[in-house]
Amino acid sequence: MNNIPVISFVAKSGTGKTTLLEKVIKELKGRGLKIAVIKHAQDFEIDQPGKDSWRHAKAGADIVAISSSNKFALIEKRRYELALHEIICRISGVDLILTEGYKKENNPKIEVLRSEVGSKLLSRPEELIAIASDMRLSAEVPCYDIDDAKGIANEIQNYVNTFHKESVRSSAEQKYE
Amino acid sequence: MNNIPVISFVAKSGTGKTTLLEKVIKELKGRGLKIAVIKHAQDFEIDQPGKDSWRHAKAGADIVAISSSNKFALIEKRRYELALHEIICRISGVDLILTEGYKKENNPKIEVLRSEVGSKLLSRPEELIAIASDMRLSAEVPCYDIDDAKGIANEIQNYVNTFHKESVRSSAEQKYE
Repeated sequence: MNNIPVISFVAKSGTGKTTLLEKVIKELKGRGLKIAVIKHAQDFEIDQPGKDSWRHAKAGADIVAISSSNKFALIEKRRYELALHEIICRISGVDLILTEGYKKENNPKIEVLRSEVGSKLLSRPEELIAIASDMRLSAEVPCYDIDDAKGIANEIQNYVNTFHKESVRSSAEQKYE
Repeated sequence: MNNIPVISFVAKSGTGKTTLLEKVIKELKGRGLKIAVIKHAQDFEIDQPGKDSWRHAKAGADIVAISSSNKFALIEKRRYELALHEIICRISGVDLILTEGYKKENNPKIEVLRSEVGSKLLSRPEELIAIASDMRLSAEVPCYDIDDAKGIANEIQNYVNTFHKESVRSSAEQKYE
């Protein structure tokens, strides 16, 4: 497993987690972090009908990759879903991986709650780095307004900094053991 | 490096190599082969505006991955182009990798020639498995009609079979060395 911190944004459907995640990415990007986002989807279409890569996939290719000087893309037909850790293994060169979904995985989480959708947490409190909500909550984890991308980004940055400090310490300890 | 045979379809632009490749993929797929296609592109758009993954990339994510039970996709912004061997390393679980382009690489090639576009080969004859053309050519490599996907598929399948036989022999030899 590569040594990149992973944080999951979890929420019930319709809570607006994509919008918050979008703002948080912008905020963290502005601070110089390289970010990967993994989205857990029910079903998705990504390629555009008529394009060469779409034609290859349609003709029966199991994997289609496209490479240019500034972008690389890979689309793979699967018979079963990749586990999150398998996806993480395919990612390198970033400071942080954010996931949208994967609420059942054991990663640190930021949960988004919206009053209209429900006030019950999906996560166990000990998994949470922070909560973003339009409600006033009394919880033992830091709570932010659902639009406070800056506050959430601060929590993420603290987590990333601690993660890297601990990695350095743990590899130094291993060296002297 | 993984042990998958790689064959490149090369041609001048406008020769119709995507159309031929499409037919050849269909033909090989029908014979039960699992195939990956790598396309070398000048520039490309793959994600669809407005989709969550597009929004994440637009917000600044350097890598966007999407995973469902039957598909996995990864789009990566790059500062420099991946070398073909780096792309090949990211591919597994297929019997064959076909590339569209990569004429300067050292892989076995199938060259597509169309009279309107020009009759001069891009490849050195010793690199060629076959030529597909609308012209009658006298060459030392097997020549097929530009629409003869079955003939080209036969040549590819022979190459794949020989490749795997040689892999088995070479790993057996290593075992007894």
